[in-house]
Amino acid sequence: MRRALDLAARGLGATSPNPVVGCVILDRSGRTVGEGWHQRAGGPHAEVHALAEAGDDARGGTAVVTLEPCNHTGRTGPCSQALVEAGIARVVYAVADPNPTATGGARALADAGVDVEGGLFADEAAAGNIAWLTSVLHHRPYVTWKYAATLDGRTAAADGSSRWITSEEARADVHRLRAESDAVLVGAGTARADDPHLAVRGVPGAVQPLRVVLDTDASAVKRGARVLDDAAPTLVAVAEDADAGELEGGGSGAEVLRLPRSRAHEGTGLDLRALLDALHDRGVRSVLLEGGATLAGAFVAAQAVDRVIGYVAPVLLGAGPPALGDAGISTIAQALRLTVCETTRLGPDLRITAVGPAAAAPGGHASTVTSIATEES
Amino acid sequence: MRRALDLAARGLGATSPNPVVGCVILDRSGRTVGEGWHQRAGGPHAEVHALAEAGDDARGGTAVVTLEPCNHTGRTGPCSQALVEAGIARVVYAVADPNPTATGGARALADAGVDVEGGLFADEAAAGNIAWLTSVLHHRPYVTWKYAATLDGRTAAADGSSRWITSEEARADVHRLRAESDAVLVGAGTARADDPHLAVRGVPGAVQPLRVVLDTDASAVKRGARVLDDAAPTLVAVAEDADAGELEGGGSGAEVLRLPRSRAHEGTGLDLRALLDALHDRGVRSVLLEGGATLAGAFVAAQAVDRVIGYVAPVLLGAGPPALGDAGISTIAQALRLTVCETTRLGPDLRITAVGPAAAAPGGHASTVTSIATEES
Ligand SMILES: NC(=O)c1ccc[n+]([C@@H]2O[C@H](COP(=O)([O-])OP(=O)(O)OC[C@H]3O[C@@H](n4cnc5c(N)ncnc54)[C@H](OP(=O)(O)O)[C@@H]3O)[C@@H](O)[C@H]2O)c1
Ligand SMILES: NC(=O)c1ccc[n+]([C@@H]2O[C@H](COP(=O)([O-])OP(=O)(O)OC[C@H]3O[C@@H](n4cnc5c(N)ncnc54)[C@H](OP(=O)(O)O)[C@@H]3O)[C@@H](O)[C@H]2O)c1
Repeated sequence: MRRALDLAARGLGATSPNPVVGCVILDRSGRTVGEGWHQRAGGPHAEVHALAEAGDDARGGTAVVTLEPCNHTGRTGPCSQALVEAGIARVVYAVADPNPTATGGARALADAGVDVEGGLFADEAAAGNIAWLTSVLHHRPYVTWKYAATLDGRTAAADGSSRWITSEEARADVHRLRAESDAVLVGAGTARADDPHLAVRGVPGAVQPLRVVLDTDASAVKRGARVLDDAAPTLVAVAEDADAGELEGGGSGAEVLRLPRSRAHEGTGLDLRALLDALHDRGVRSVLLEGGATLAGAFVAAQAVDRVIGYVAPVLLGAGPPALGDAGISTIAQALRLTVCETTRLGPDLRITAVGPAAAAPGGHASTVTSIATEES
Repeated sequence: MRRALDLAARGLGATSPNPVVGCVILDRSGRTVGEGWHQRAGGPHAEVHALAEAGDDARGGTAVVTLEPCNHTGRTGPCSQALVEAGIARVVYAVADPNPTATGGARALADAGVDVEGGLFADEAAAGNIAWLTSVLHHRPYVTWKYAATLDGRTAAADGSSRWITSEEARADVHRLRAESDAVLVGAGTARADDPHLAVRGVPGAVQPLRVVLDTDASAVKRGARVLDDAAPTLVAVAEDADAGELEGGGSGAEVLRLPRSRAHEGTGLDLRALLDALHDRGVRSVLLEGGATLAGAFVAAQAVDRVIGYVAPVLLGAGPPALGDAGISTIAQALRLTVCETTRLGPDLRITAVGPAAAAPGGHASTVTSIATEES
C-alpha cells in the first residue's frame, strides 16, 4: 500500500476533477506484477494501467489500491468490472469512494466473489487525496495558503524590500506546490506590486495550474502583465459591474470571470464563496492561495483556509508588512487554531505545514468510510 | 564523552561564573569507575567529584572531560595536579580552556607524563558551554531572546488578549530555560502590563536566576510587584538620575542598579552595553531576554542577541502586537540573519532555536582551540 500511495502522489495536480489513485497488482505468490496510477483526468484509471502491465499474471492475484475501485462507466469503464474480468481474487483498498456516482465498487466486487478489504492505511490515503475528498464532501476546492516570512512574521522590510527573504530551495519548493495545485490565486495588490508570473518553472512534467487574479475593478491586470503570457491559462476575476473592456476585448490571453462583490469583511473585493463555487464548477479541486496579506486575511475571515504552508526564514526585521492581514479576529478566543503536521528544513529555511480544524482529522472522515467498507466486505 | 557532556549539562544555570564541566573516569580496562560534574560555583570541579568516586581504581586509568582540566589554584586546587596525583595515565578532553588564568592544564599534564588528547566532540562541548565561552571571549553575557507568538508573528490579539497563545508544554519549557539562565530580563512595558514573576517554577533542584527589570525612571516596579517577592533575587535597573526612592528605601526586596541612559536607538531607555557589562561583572554568563517587543528590538539593534528561541503556536490572528519591535532595520540587507539549529514540537506548538552569526559556528572557535591543544599534547 505504501508503494501504491507513492504512485498515487505522482498524479497530484494533473487528475482533477478526479482523485489521485495508485494501484499495485500482486500475483498468487505475492510478487509485484503490475503498477499504475491515474495520470490525468480522462486517462485510464490506476487499476487499468496496473492490470495492463500485469497481463495474465493478475489471475488469482491481489490488487492493492489507494481508493475503492469505481463502479460507474464514465470516460473509462468501471474498474470493479475490469478487476473481476482480469481474474483478481482479492482487492485491498485504503479509502472508500464517497462520490455518489462512483461508489459501490467494493459491493460489486464482493458480489462477484472477490475477497474485498477496505481501510488499510486509510489515514495516509485520505491525506494524499485531501483536496479531492474535501471537494466531494464540501463542493468547493481545498485551499492552501502559502506565505513566506521572517521568524518575526514579516514579508518585507520597512522600505518594502524583500528580495530574497527565503532561500532558493524554498522558492523551488513553491513551484512544486504550484505543480500539485489546480489553481494559483493572488489579489490585485500582489498583481500590482509584483507583476507575478504564477506559472510552474523547473518541475519536469508538471501540468500548469490555472492562474487566477482577483481584480475587482479590472484595474490591476494590464495588457503586458506576466500572467497574460501563454505559459498557463489565466482567469481574471472581476466584479459583475466592472469595466473589463481591455481584458475582454479578445486576445488578452485571459478569461474574465464575473463575480458578485463581497458582502462580508467590510464589503471590499469579490465574494470569495462565489469564487470558490465558480472554480469548483470548472473542476478545480485544489487552490494555492499565494497572497498577499489582505487577500489571505479575507480567506481566513471567510473560513476558507484548509491548510497553511509557511516558508519561514531565520531572519529578524522588527518592522515591515505582516504575513497575514486583518482576518476579522479581534480577541484570542476567535483565533484560527491549526494543527502542525510537518516541519521541514529547506536550505536555511523552515517549511511549516499546518491544517485547519476540518482537515486536521482526515482519520475521522476516513474511519467513517472504512467502517462502511468493512460492513460491505 | 557523550556521557561526560550529559553530566556537564546538569550544571547549566548553577555554575556561573564558571563553565559547566562533566568528567568520566575509566579504569585500566576501560570500565567506568567514576563520574562527576561541576555542580555549583565554589564547589568541587567535575574531575574532583569523579576521582573521589573512582578512588584507587583511577590509577592507570583514563579521565574523559568536557573541558581542558584547569591549572590554577582558585577556590579549589588545580585539577591537573589532582589527576596526576590520582595516577591517571591518559586524559581526553573536548574543548581547551580559553580562560587566561586557568589555561595550561593540558601542558602541565603532558609535562607530568600523562598522555593528553584534546578536541574530541569539541563542537558539542563548545555548544554546551556556549554562554561561558562567549563571556570569556567577549566579556559580556550570552543573550538568548525568547518569545512566544502565533504563526503570523503576533504575541496577542488586537484587543491585547493573549491567554494562552502557547501551550502548557511550551510554558513549562520556558521554566527550564529560566533554570539554565543566570539572569532573566524584561522591560518596563512588560513589568507594567503583566506584573510577571520571572522565577523558576516546576524544575526540581533549579537554581533561581537573577530577575532583572529595565525600569529607566523607576516607575514600573511598584511595591507589591511580584518580582519583589523572595522567590529569587531581583535587580531593578534605573537611570543614573532616576528617583528610585521607593525601591532603595530598603526592604523593597530588590537591588537597584544605576546605569547611563541609552545614546543609541533614539535615546530611549538604558544603555544596554552598560547593562551587560554590569551583569558580567556580577558573574552573570547567560541572560534570558523575555521581552517585550520594544526591549527585544533594542537588543537586536544593539547586536546583543546571540540566540533566539521562538515558541510558535499554530494559530493565526491577522492583527495584534508583533513579536519584535523596531530594531533600527529598514531594508532587507540590514536584516539579522540567523541559523536554525533546532526545531522541536512541544505539545501543539513548535520551538524554533536559531543562533546569530557569531554563535552559529562554535565549531570555528572550538577548532582553533583544538589545534593549540593538539600542539600541546
Ligand atoms: N511573502 C509572501 O508570501 C507574499 C505573497 C504574496 C504577496 N506578497 C506581497 O504582498 C503585497 C501585496 O499584498 P496586499 O495585501 O497589498 O494585496 P493582495 O492581498 O495581493 O490583494 C488585495 C486586493 O485583492 C483584491 N481583492 C479582491 N477580492 C478580495 C477579497 N474578497 N478580499 C480581499 N481582497 C480582495 C482587492 O483589490 P481590488 O479591490 O483592487 O480588487 C484587495 O485590495 C505585495 O507587496 C507582495 O509582494 C508577499
Ligand atoms: N509573547 C511574549 O513572548 C512576550 C514576552 C514579554 C512580554 N510580552 C508582552 O509585551 C508587552 C510589553 O512589551 P513592550 O514592548 O510594551 O515593553 P517592553 O519591551 O517589556 O519594555 C519596554 C520598555 O523598557 C524600558 N527600557 C529600558 N531600557 C530600554 C532600552 N534600552 N530599550 C528599550 N526599552 C528600554 C523602556 O521603558 P522605560 O523608559 O519606562 O524604562 C521601554 O519602554 C506586554 O503586553 C507583554 O504581555 C510578550
